[in-house]
Amino acid sequence: MLTQTHLYQEIHEQPSVLATVLEQEQETIGRLAAEIRRRDITHVVIAARGTSDNAGRYAQYLLGAVNGLTVTLSAPSLFSIYERPPRFGNALALGISQSGKSPDIVAVLAEARRQGALTAAITNFPTSDLGQQADFVIGLHAGQERSVAATKTYTAELAIVALLSATLAENAEMLATLQRLPELVKQVLIVNDQVAGIAERYRYMQHCVVIGRGFNYATAFELALKMKELTYTIVEPYSSADFLHGPMAVIEPGFPVVLIAPAGVVLPELYSFTETLKERGAEIIAISNDPHILELARTPLALMQDIPEWLSPLIAIIPGQLLAMHLAHTRDYDVDRPRGLRKVTETR
Amino acid sequence: MLTQTHLYQEIHEQPSVLATVLEQEQETIGRLAAEIRRRDITHVVIAARGTSDNAGRYAQYLLGAVNGLTVTLSAPSLFSIYERPPRFGNALALGISQSGKSPDIVAVLAEARRQGALTAAITNFPTSDLGQQADFVIGLHAGQERSVAATKTYTAELAIVALLSATLAENAEMLATLQRLPELVKQVLIVNDQVAGIAERYRYMQHCVVIGRGFNYATAFELALKMKELTYTIVEPYSSADFLHGPMAVIEPGFPVVLIAPAGVVLPELYSFTETLKERGAEIIAISNDPHILELARTPLALMQDIPEWLSPLIAIIPGQLLAMHLAHTRDYDVDRPRGLRKVTETR
Repeated sequence: MLTQTHLYQEIHEQPSVLATVLEQEQETIGRLAAEIRRRDITHVVIAARGTSDNAGRYAQYLLGAVNGLTVTLSAPSLFSIYERPPRFGNALALGISQSGKSPDIVAVLAEARRQGALTAAITNFPTSDLGQQADFVIGLHAGQERSVAATKTYTAELAIVALLSATLAENAEMLATLQRLPELVKQVLIVNDQVAGIAERYRYMQHCVVIGRGFNYATAFELALKMKELTYTIVEPYSSADFLHGPMAVIEPGFPVVLIAPAGVVLPELYSFTETLKERGAEIIAISNDPHILELARTPLALMQDIPEWLSPLIAIIPGQLLAMHLAHTRDYDVDRPRGLRKVTETR
Repeated sequence: MLTQTHLYQEIHEQPSVLATVLEQEQETIGRLAAEIRRRDITHVVIAARGTSDNAGRYAQYLLGAVNGLTVTLSAPSLFSIYERPPRFGNALALGISQSGKSPDIVAVLAEARRQGALTAAITNFPTSDLGQQADFVIGLHAGQERSVAATKTYTAELAIVALLSATLAENAEMLATLQRLPELVKQVLIVNDQVAGIAERYRYMQHCVVIGRGFNYATAFELALKMKELTYTIVEPYSSADFLHGPMAVIEPGFPVVLIAPAGVVLPELYSFTETLKERGAEIIAISNDPHILELARTPLALMQDIPEWLSPLIAIIPGQLLAMHLAHTRDYDVDRPRGLRKVTETR
């Protein structure tokens, strides 16, 4: 029974995990924000891999757009293999890792600390190696994640990034909206049955692309990763802008494109992009709350109205997680234990 | 006749373009390096898309490993769509664009200049909008690139990055090695006939992944982009470390993997990675000068010995460009005008 798998249950645990993490980590994040201000930090260097790297992508846009910070997604091999770590200067080094165990991510924080930079870790295991290298340790409070594919730890990581951004900005409206997050995620989980029906259509899909822009660039990457992990489909994520610089050539009639397009300032761009896709005959699966985008889609997945764009990645990934799960299920794959993967991946 | 296409000719023009750019831009790069030192710059923010973004990826690793600089690949939409540009501080803003025309890339440099940051542009059109926003303009000297898929402008961009790195480091050995680059590229172009033969085997390949690590992470991205543009194959680039964090699940017997593995410090990592691929029955196409890697490959593409790892991306991409071209040719595609693409892509 799909409903008894860890993956199904962990996807559905997200409202409660989010409520816990937002409550429990408020104080630590308040202290971290104060320290960032005190040191007049304008630059954040993030070390992460896999799902956590996608949380880093969200941070790149959110901390940029809301807080004016420059965010670098670091190249961990410079630290671990080349042994020529860049200079952190006055940057904050932020490690993100569910397990807190991957040696390359730990190495980035250890080097930052050696250089005297401020360090912070976001991890489900605060006492892990990563946690031990950090001045500020922020826990995910997700409980054990038994499914190999990360879901609840991803949205918990995003919630922490959003809370940090809102706290740094002292933005009362953002902080209030974040309190509604668990309820919003609960609402969107209702699409589960619709997605289960839709998945049948894509039983034999061998590849697709996922398009997201701005804040939802992260969502495109994370949805693509879930699809690869769970369904073994070749799925490549793109921003619509990068896709126009070459990859658009792959589109032919029937080519499936998942479009992440919640309402927001990127929408006018996505209209013309979607028209181009349609002209070339692409089959569009749209995750959106915009009527025009949903109308253009062969397979519309509607989100509720009135989600601020900055919060939408936390909502829009949910139908994506469900799609990957149900698609794996239509293919009779084990959704908890994808072939060839382990929960903790240790890379240098 | 393939040999009469712009693409074929531009690939084969690379030795002479490289000789020209290395000679012509030495003085400007010397002045830029002096200014970087004078301002004690430790952080570089790069704005680029498509092929030029892959040159930025090379810069991220090379300027990191050799010069200790932190390199951020910027999110142009923060400048153009969100209109919330991050603070540059004392960073160098570096725009890379063949045409110098894409409004989003121009916007990053314009904002950097407004903030008083040092700006530099690498472009084939020094008088372009991008060039006009830059304190230092470095030309590609590639002549007109008529094929839509960029080849000679990519290696020219890489050569400029390498020259900047060597100049900043005042590394006489690197500078001397760079003088040999045109001759090395000429030598590796001899694989053309071998690649033409190999391409037949992959006539019906629908997707593959390309793996590169460290300096050659850029090569993986650029090879994947050429394959997408020219052959419409779904090709996704990965670092071997990121690939282990989830995507490894897609590998099944016969799955094609292009491995970029010139000798260097990343090789021990790639050995165990390649063994894992072999265990799962992947078909490996290897671009390498390491006997063990070449032996593990179903399709070995041998590079000459004695290429320093930092320079290898300029050599290793050549068989990749040829592979994409010949594969497109086996499929009777127009190699100069891929469907749905234009030479200049203007994105916001």
